Amino acid sequence: MSVLVVGSVAFDTLETPSGRRERVLGGAATHFALAASFFTKVRVVGVVGEDFLPEHEAVLTSRGIDTAGLEHVPGKSFHWSGSYMRDLSSADTLATDLNVFADFAPKIPTSYLDTEYLFLANIDPVLQERVRSQMPGVKLVAGDTMNYWISAHRQNLLKVLRELDVLVINDHEARMLSGETNNVRAARGVLGLGPKSLVVKYAEHGSAAFFSPSSFGNGKQHKLFRAPATPTEDVVDPTGAGDSFAGGFFGYIASQKQLTPDVFRKAMFYGCALGSLSVEDFGAERLQRTTREEIDRRFDELREISHL
Amino acid sequence: MSVLVVGSVAFDTLETPSGRRERVLGGAATHFALAASFFTKVRVVGVVGEDFLPEHEAVLTSRGIDTAGLEHVPGKSFHWSGSYMRDLSSADTLATDLNVFADFAPKIPTSYLDTEYLFLANIDPVLQERVRSQMPGVKLVAGDTMNYWISAHRQNLLKVLRELDVLVINDHEARMLSGETNNVRAARGVLGLGPKSLVVKYAEHGSAAFFSPSSFGNGKQHKLFRAPATPTEDVVDPTGAGDSFAGGFFGYIASQKQLTPDVFRKAMFYGCALGSLSVEDFGAERLQRTTREEIDRRFDELREISHL
Repeated sequence: MSVLVVGSVAFDTLETPSGRRERVLGGAATHFALAASFFTKVRVVGVVGEDFLPEHEAVLTSRGIDTAGLEHVPGKSFHWSGSYMRDLSSADTLATDLNVFADFAPKIPTSYLDTEYLFLANIDPVLQERVRSQMPGVKLVAGDTMNYWISAHRQNLLKVLRELDVLVINDHEARMLSGETNNVRAARGVLGLGPKSLVVKYAEHGSAAFFSPSSFGNGKQHKLFRAPATPTEDVVDPTGAGDSFAGGFFGYIASQKQLTPDVFRKAMFYGCALGSLSVEDFGAERLQRTTREEIDRRFDELREISHL
Repeated sequence: MSVLVVGSVAFDTLETPSGRRERVLGGAATHFALAASFFTKVRVVGVVGEDFLPEHEAVLTSRGIDTAGLEHVPGKSFHWSGSYMRDLSSADTLATDLNVFADFAPKIPTSYLDTEYLFLANIDPVLQERVRSQMPGVKLVAGDTMNYWISAHRQNLLKVLRELDVLVINDHEARMLSGETNNVRAARGVLGLGPKSLVVKYAEHGSAAFFSPSSFGNGKQHKLFRAPATPTEDVVDPTGAGDSFAGGFFGYIASQKQLTPDVFRKAMFYGCALGSLSVEDFGAERLQRTTREEIDRRFDELREISHL
């Protein structure tokens, strides 16, 4: 089944203890699409400027990603610049040049309308809602958000949350959304806002999935699931790790016939595998040179380090 | 096999969002001993004052704990007072009255000399070393420490670490000891100081075990093991959770014929089970009314929420 991701395609200038890179290909949709492409067909809706060259598009198309929905407009692409020199676990933003992304109005190509799996990456919840409503036939919708939308656009975001099958966020976002500091209470609070299931990423502490009685359409309350992270000593650049997690997670789900508790658990492990690969080089460079075999080895390693 | 724990037996005055308790029975050795008593015979070496009444000793002896090494001296018992009103994950110390504990000179009763499993709870490393040297026939030695000894008594502590089979500490202590913030690097740094194996507790993120080639006496480098925490919404009082973890962990190990990777992993799950029970009431009250069946149910739940 194909997955459609709507989100940013950008250039990132990155500074970490491992070095500095100017304008590498990035953006949530890029990381997500590359990660998901190891499992299923991926379609992208986004906007880029004139600095987005055929060589950049080839990074996506060479992985079989459909870029019919990647709109090219006059101007420059979204550019973000961040530094992890102070703390590898959170970036200091040095510049956010929205450029063509400031007027992003997602357009779904007709050829995308049969998409069954939709991922709403971190963009304005008004746009997330608009895309969602243009895809009435979709089977499963997952999405992400960030602190800015949670604090300054909460009402718009709440509308989106009510429509989501799976919300994929990090622990800071779960705390902000719920107002709770305890992980389990925070998750319960977020589920109370409407998403059927919730995945919370805890960086090097792995991730957890929390379920509601509507998670699997069977009315049953399933217990949470706790996935470890791949132990990583050398984090080169954490940018995009969360989007790579989401791409591996949702890409695997889209490759399966049905969303069952077993599929959801395995998808968490695949998400961890892709997230851990992502941080081993700048931007999306590591994902561009990985293989399904390598991903499967990480999956096996996660099982090995967490199972009795 | 029996486990000998040397450490504090104290009274704690506790203030948490759930309420306030005056002078409840506490101390690292108390929590450890109660937790370990569900798996094996436990012996205690500690010191108490005249305020430690038969009813307090009965809390230990009613669980079959041997208190021959619990010295009674004139004066008052160690008293600690802490508040978790600001943050349930770390206490503000309101008072530390060492009292009789200030002159603690651990004495090992002759009847304890055949002990095969020794746990050096968080006390002055000079005392830890002294106890260790009095028990030459011991089969396995584990221990704990805290920020104060790491920063102000580092050289003494380093001598103890070189003698340990298993060091059981929390993530802040691992970072302090190693000077590293990344979990895996921190663990590698701590193992470089001498303990054969290392267990790091991450509070609600569970725990991890890190191994060296000498962990199991077979010269093999084993991969780390990552154990989840029992999801707990209602933390009444976190005091003693780490010591309860250590007691469950080491008590289970002492109940087994040999320390194998499989035994070590299961011991981590038992540690998590006891730690999670401990926080459900003030001080050691929850451990005083638990059962092996309840502990085994938590063990099963940990497996259920973490295994594919």
